[in-house]
Amino acid sequence: MKKTKTARKIIKTVKLAKNPKGLDAFFKAENIALIGASHEQNKIGNVLMKNLLKNKTVFPVNPNVDLIMNRHCFKTVLEIEDKIDFALIAVKAEFVPDVVEQCGKKKIKNVLVISSGFSEIGNEKLNENLKSKLEKYNINCIGPNCLGIYDSFSELDAIFLSQQRLKRPLQGKISFLSQSGALGGAMLGNLAEKKIGISKFISYGNAINLNECDFLEYLSEDENTSVICFYVEQIRDGKRFLEVAKKVSSKKPLIVFKGGVTEQGNRAALSHTGSLAGDSKIYEGIFRQVNAIQVDNLEDLFFVANLFEKFENFKNIDEKIQVITNGGGYGIICADQIEKNGLKLAEFSPKIKEKLKKEIPQVNITNPLDLMGDVTNERYKIALDNCLNDPANDLILLVVLYQTPLINEDIVEVVSGMNNKRKKPIVLVIPKTESEFNISEMLEDKGLACFEFPENAIRVLKKFLRK
Amino acid sequence: MKKTKTARKIIKTVKLAKNPKGLDAFFKAENIALIGASHEQNKIGNVLMKNLLKNKTVFPVNPNVDLIMNRHCFKTVLEIEDKIDFALIAVKAEFVPDVVEQCGKKKIKNVLVISSGFSEIGNEKLNENLKSKLEKYNINCIGPNCLGIYDSFSELDAIFLSQQRLKRPLQGKISFLSQSGALGGAMLGNLAEKKIGISKFISYGNAINLNECDFLEYLSEDENTSVICFYVEQIRDGKRFLEVAKKVSSKKPLIVFKGGVTEQGNRAALSHTGSLAGDSKIYEGIFRQVNAIQVDNLEDLFFVANLFEKFENFKNIDEKIQVITNGGGYGIICADQIEKNGLKLAEFSPKIKEKLKKEIPQVNITNPLDLMGDVTNERYKIALDNCLNDPANDLILLVVLYQTPLINEDIVEVVSGMNNKRKKPIVLVIPKTESEFNISEMLEDKGLACFEFPENAIRVLKKFLRK
Repeated sequence: MKKTKTARKIIKTVKLAKNPKGLDAFFKAENIALIGASHEQNKIGNVLMKNLLKNKTVFPVNPNVDLIMNRHCFKTVLEIEDKIDFALIAVKAEFVPDVVEQCGKKKIKNVLVISSGFSEIGNEKLNENLKSKLEKYNINCIGPNCLGIYDSFSELDAIFLSQQRLKRPLQGKISFLSQSGALGGAMLGNLAEKKIGISKFISYGNAINLNECDFLEYLSEDENTSVICFYVEQIRDGKRFLEVAKKVSSKKPLIVFKGGVTEQGNRAALSHTGSLAGDSKIYEGIFRQVNAIQVDNLEDLFFVANLFEKFENFKNIDEKIQVITNGGGYGIICADQIEKNGLKLAEFSPKIKEKLKKEIPQVNITNPLDLMGDVTNERYKIALDNCLNDPANDLILLVVLYQTPLINEDIVEVVSGMNNKRKKPIVLVIPKTESEFNISEMLEDKGLACFEFPENAIRVLKKFLRK
Repeated sequence: MKKTKTARKIIKTVKLAKNPKGLDAFFKAENIALIGASHEQNKIGNVLMKNLLKNKTVFPVNPNVDLIMNRHCFKTVLEIEDKIDFALIAVKAEFVPDVVEQCGKKKIKNVLVISSGFSEIGNEKLNENLKSKLEKYNINCIGPNCLGIYDSFSELDAIFLSQQRLKRPLQGKISFLSQSGALGGAMLGNLAEKKIGISKFISYGNAINLNECDFLEYLSEDENTSVICFYVEQIRDGKRFLEVAKKVSSKKPLIVFKGGVTEQGNRAALSHTGSLAGDSKIYEGIFRQVNAIQVDNLEDLFFVANLFEKFENFKNIDEKIQVITNGGGYGIICADQIEKNGLKLAEFSPKIKEKLKKEIPQVNITNPLDLMGDVTNERYKIALDNCLNDPANDLILLVVLYQTPLINEDIVEVVSGMNNKRKKPIVLVIPKTESEFNISEMLEDKGLACFEFPENAIRVLKKFLRK
């Protein structure tokens, strides 16, 4: 208890600055020096060049080449006359300290180091060497040993994976901070496939000077970010994290997935980045203390974030759920999962119950509300409308099995029309099927949140409701 | 203990008959009377007609119509001269007993009743009436209140959902028995979407005379079924189920998903089919006693079955897992999940460890084996080959993040080539991404089992390993 109180006291004194640590220099950069630019197809220095060039002014640096993609190539950054917002460094690890020295001389204050081969493989000497250069010139550094950064609003693509290999996600207001680059990359691809949009992506690797706290602070001030997702194996400075993360989560939902929560997982983390993942109970305690939402499935990280983004305007939602279904079995599974997850099935208010009895007399008015196999679009509409008007529930879990013969694709309009009134969150369960219409895709395009299975929907809802 | 022993004793005396209860009359039917056939588009009697006609000889019965789809329509089954394998009944509930009476007179011994409106809505009188007709003529009945049956081998499609609305799954050796019709239908569509093949599908509804035990017995003898999936809310005859299911599961994996495992779920089940779902602990005990595999997620029902079908030739696999990955973060999550699920990370045998150290010196030889971001197809091949030859592990969990630049689509050939040697089960984790190639689809087409997330893969593996 005492500890918590102390922490709280400190937090009150922490004030988050706008543009903390001047990270806008990275995310709103226009002029970027690419050190280690390459003209060879598929080389990292070539992929980065192509990705950056789409929207930014790139100054390629490579002492061995004159022209890259028809652009003059500089021998060193010192030759560049323009002001550089940040230098993106993708040379062999052993050359990084020298290159950073040159950046310092050129008065470049921000570097993003993609190169790996530092403390993550036990090369502490090289690590210290890089550190001292950064300190000498007071340079902000993202990385080393990272995938890069991405911003869908400023259209900065500083990720070293090609856009053919990894299609970027749509624009959205979820930002994603990842200690692991490979996991970050895989998730970006997954988000593109799931059509969940993102704002900023930051792979921060070894965090040699900028660390998770700096990025969290920055994202909490970012107007294009409304939800923050965070994959982490190790928090380096627990005390500062307690302060910063609490402040951050008071402004925006902070959703955390922790890698290395078991002994075996810890051992794997140690061999991965040389970081000691630490006791999972301690981490759970920290995340609880800072009001972060810890998810246990990688899959849930973005689905929870997606609900926060979609339902941004609903505050303090309680856990009384009204289930509407056209398949009794799905109703039963929903009821099971709601109870298992400690949520509640709402009870109808007497008034709405009477109204429903009159308007859809063929239906047994209970929760789950089973509209039955002969359900029509119209019956769905009546049920939804009444349930949305019932003060006795807090949100609607709506199951639509598109197989039943008397509904058709107009069900999309019925549901999205009701959703547009924004009375309550509506969460959908729609099994993905091979059919003439892809109802869940059509509903997602209308801004609704769809899940394939009741279990996933309710597990994610529980986290969204912070239960 | 005593109870178990008694049960075992009885089981030894139970002998499953080939073609139990003569159910071949349904599944291998050639001549089918469709009572309640309709010429009106989208009516159930019309959809059934179209579905059946693709491969079977149909005798439409409807006293009010002369021709249906250019075929002579009979007033009653008594007018039909040919021998009828079974009658498919889709008339209003109140007419069903009379129609069954006529079937009895025509010496039809098998009926499938789609119609609903019996005990599931509390109409016990009609239920008893139907029951007495069935007993009077000694008729086998599937249903009433069901979706129908399907057989991908005999090409029987007696499901009342149109093939436009619900594309049927591919052919496979998983059979699916479902108490709930709507859930059965939704899952069929989901299986089609996931390209998981099925053999037989049986929606048995109210089980007025043929019940789950009869169908399980039949499926256990069916040469086209190698795995049985079962969605159940209520088992009617516990004693017989104990006997039959134990015998069935000694022949084929029996995977069960139980709806109504909580108080709320039970209440929903009661209002759904009038069936009392019962205490979940008792059910868990029953399923354990009969060696059925109970899954807790609807999603897992078919993924577990899929592993059993794919790895049919591997017997008594132990739980020592070798993880191979090209992303450290994924390795950590796999290690976490393996420990959380009570499985084991294998340790390398000294010989293989030495071999790997020589052949891929850039890699740290631990489990998870992280082949790193600069992995090539060749490095994957060396790792896989050695791990498959290592007696110290029982199966391989292989993570492929297709984003890393130095692998390409030939990785499909590398993995499937190794898989074709059938030394050990290989289970894949491949995040679905938007990319130039859909690697997981390509690997699934080659017969491999792919999962999108480590958590799901390992949860399903645990059930497959019966841990």
